[in-house]
Amino acid sequence: MIMNSEKKVVEIICVGTEILLGNIVNTNARYLAEKCAEIGLASYYQITVGDNAGRLEESIRLALSRSDVVILSGGLGPTDDDLTKEVASKVAGREMYLDETSKERLVSYFERRGLTLTENNFKQAMIPEGGIILTNNNGTAPGVIIPVDNKHIVLLPGPPGELIPMFEESVMPYLQGITNEIFVSQTVKLVSVGESIAETMIKDLIDSQTNPTIATYAKVGEVHIRVTAAAEDAASAQKLIKPVVKELKSRFGNNVYTTHDEVTLEKSIVDLLVSGDLKCMTVESCTGGKIASRIVSVPGASDVLKYGLVTYSNKSKRKLTPVKKLTLEKYGAVSEEVVREMVKEAEVGPKADVIVGVTGFAGPSADNPEDVGLVYIGCNVCGKITVKKFKFSGGREKIRESATVQALVLMRECVLEYLSLKTFGKD
Amino acid sequence: MIMNSEKKVVEIICVGTEILLGNIVNTNARYLAEKCAEIGLASYYQITVGDNAGRLEESIRLALSRSDVVILSGGLGPTDDDLTKEVASKVAGREMYLDETSKERLVSYFERRGLTLTENNFKQAMIPEGGIILTNNNGTAPGVIIPVDNKHIVLLPGPPGELIPMFEESVMPYLQGITNEIFVSQTVKLVSVGESIAETMIKDLIDSQTNPTIATYAKVGEVHIRVTAAAEDAASAQKLIKPVVKELKSRFGNNVYTTHDEVTLEKSIVDLLVSGDLKCMTVESCTGGKIASRIVSVPGASDVLKYGLVTYSNKSKRKLTPVKKLTLEKYGAVSEEVVREMVKEAEVGPKADVIVGVTGFAGPSADNPEDVGLVYIGCNVCGKITVKKFKFSGGREKIRESATVQALVLMRECVLEYLSLKTFGKD
Repeated sequence: MIMNSEKKVVEIICVGTEILLGNIVNTNARYLAEKCAEIGLASYYQITVGDNAGRLEESIRLALSRSDVVILSGGLGPTDDDLTKEVASKVAGREMYLDETSKERLVSYFERRGLTLTENNFKQAMIPEGGIILTNNNGTAPGVIIPVDNKHIVLLPGPPGELIPMFEESVMPYLQGITNEIFVSQTVKLVSVGESIAETMIKDLIDSQTNPTIATYAKVGEVHIRVTAAAEDAASAQKLIKPVVKELKSRFGNNVYTTHDEVTLEKSIVDLLVSGDLKCMTVESCTGGKIASRIVSVPGASDVLKYGLVTYSNKSKRKLTPVKKLTLEKYGAVSEEVVREMVKEAEVGPKADVIVGVTGFAGPSADNPEDVGLVYIGCNVCGKITVKKFKFSGGREKIRESATVQALVLMRECVLEYLSLKTFGKD
Repeated sequence: MIMNSEKKVVEIICVGTEILLGNIVNTNARYLAEKCAEIGLASYYQITVGDNAGRLEESIRLALSRSDVVILSGGLGPTDDDLTKEVASKVAGREMYLDETSKERLVSYFERRGLTLTENNFKQAMIPEGGIILTNNNGTAPGVIIPVDNKHIVLLPGPPGELIPMFEESVMPYLQGITNEIFVSQTVKLVSVGESIAETMIKDLIDSQTNPTIATYAKVGEVHIRVTAAAEDAASAQKLIKPVVKELKSRFGNNVYTTHDEVTLEKSIVDLLVSGDLKCMTVESCTGGKIASRIVSVPGASDVLKYGLVTYSNKSKRKLTPVKKLTLEKYGAVSEEVVREMVKEAEVGPKADVIVGVTGFAGPSADNPEDVGLVYIGCNVCGKITVKKFKFSGGREKIRESATVQALVLMRECVLEYLSLKTFGKD
């Protein structure tokens, strides 16, 4: 199959002076680039341009001259600075009109929140003639697709919380309609293995495969292997993917926590707990609620999460968990002994089968500077306690993030072990 | 002061197919943009381009035609893919020569690490004629500055661990030599006011100011106003900024939580609690630990956070908080009555002066679908309880994020009120 000859080209233009000034990292460009690659669009350039009509126009014209699809993010707000829709309409040669449906949505959006709508807000309901309106379920600015001859200008709001759902709900199906091929991806998600080891373990596959392609991506504490096949229809693409995913599962065994794109690590743990009819709780020091928050992010978490404790101070560890004053004094709050007591069955609150606990130095300072990044994680599954020691690098947030992921990973490992022993015992 | 006439313009070109494919976030662009803004370079465009000679050449030519300084990052490696130096030399009309010093550095770099040097490594010691060599103390690829007439091409290695020190050690002094101005920014951060209202309130200032300039940025639950002044030195710039920041503070009053760039909302709350010698705790249902986690993200949070509870289930609300079974049955878990009891002084754990509690439907499902996004937030400051009702939109994570920010905002409002009454009482 010759793919590149027919491949449509996309160009991403991010609009915002705050990007040019370096105030924010351009995560929209990365997100859009990754999604466009997934659906088989080629990409040769990305542009960032400020909130300036002349330069924005020049950029859109240049992009349209060399690409089939031009995606713009940002500049759809209600203020005078927000020019993207106006300039794109000019380049496309379209007038704008006040769209009544969009206007009504705006009015009801403000009413529901008890906010005052000012005249400049109606700017967001202005739509270029012939534009396809993309509903914004997470904000006030609708998106627009303007078809121009055989090309396509896509206008998206800048906030990622609005851009991402709009892209997935409306833009992806549209773009899939204009490409000649269907690209289907499946992700095999791994924990407890590093990226370079994972890559070495499948180097032969990566080197020999052309369709599907295989690529690895490192995430905090995880490695994702993405298998992407191009075909005329989804069924044919899935047929190409299936044996490769099977091979990856056989190579990585229990390190694979899911082969479904939408399943997160925390979702896989909630599912595991549900399958074993186990209830869990969290006892967090330096992670400060991040583990509980990841579990609560899974719809239906109430079926498995009994409760969570953030015991950041020594006093709260003593009052709320079985940690003894003597243990804190003898070993210090960041120690194997303390985390072991943190995950013992607590007297307060409802009972849980699985208790995960974390104590560590997140920095930036510590009595002993070398201790920054030292974290102990413990997991108690029905009385069996496992403790692991970690030394994470990076700043305070990086260390807390790493500790959170590794706590979830340890939870998964311990629950899996418990369930396999239980099954084995039954046989 | 007429600025733009004298302002030198920089354009950043990031070279790398991995950015176009969305495999990595372009943090180099943000870093370089921020640093260039600090030293007073204007920036109108950023470009990302892949490892392709023709397109890279086109991009450098375009950038040179409209900017004074063109900074390229990436593509200085030893492989055939790495083309940046070769293409930049071609555009500048320079031959390349093997620089003996760079070659020796390479040889000793490999020797020290016991690595084998292959022939293609010497590619990294090739330097364009007339180029200023920038020593790489953290890797193998030297950087180069090529002066071209009155313009400047700067070539930097892609890995941030090499690019950042090289930029700070060598490129910044060089660029400061060619700019005439210093730019200084200060950010006024607001809560409890929307972006369009904030902008309406200062439209006269935005329209009339040219130096400093004033720009607003919307964040989740916050509005940031950035004031940027250009001057010959930092002291003069600060002198220009000061009256504008003072005016903004007087217009927005208590809605301003900080005028310091590095202070976050949670940091301002921790500071407020420290100043009032108040200790806090959190009782979270749908936010599931996010409020506690934001507080813990502040170094020194242990001085104010007694502990946190994640009471996601009704049972845990009853067991760990003063919520009564009858209240849950009569009003439901998501109600003003329940949050009012959640933030009453708890019997478990150490005592706290400030208790913030959240209960809500984060979705995606609820018994009554219209209830998704309904959130009650309560705050108890030394016995005085305030409850607010919210209806957030968006998906589960957006709702949880909005609830977290508004809980912090309510906490701030209630503590401020308590402290002002306390001060008033003293007078």
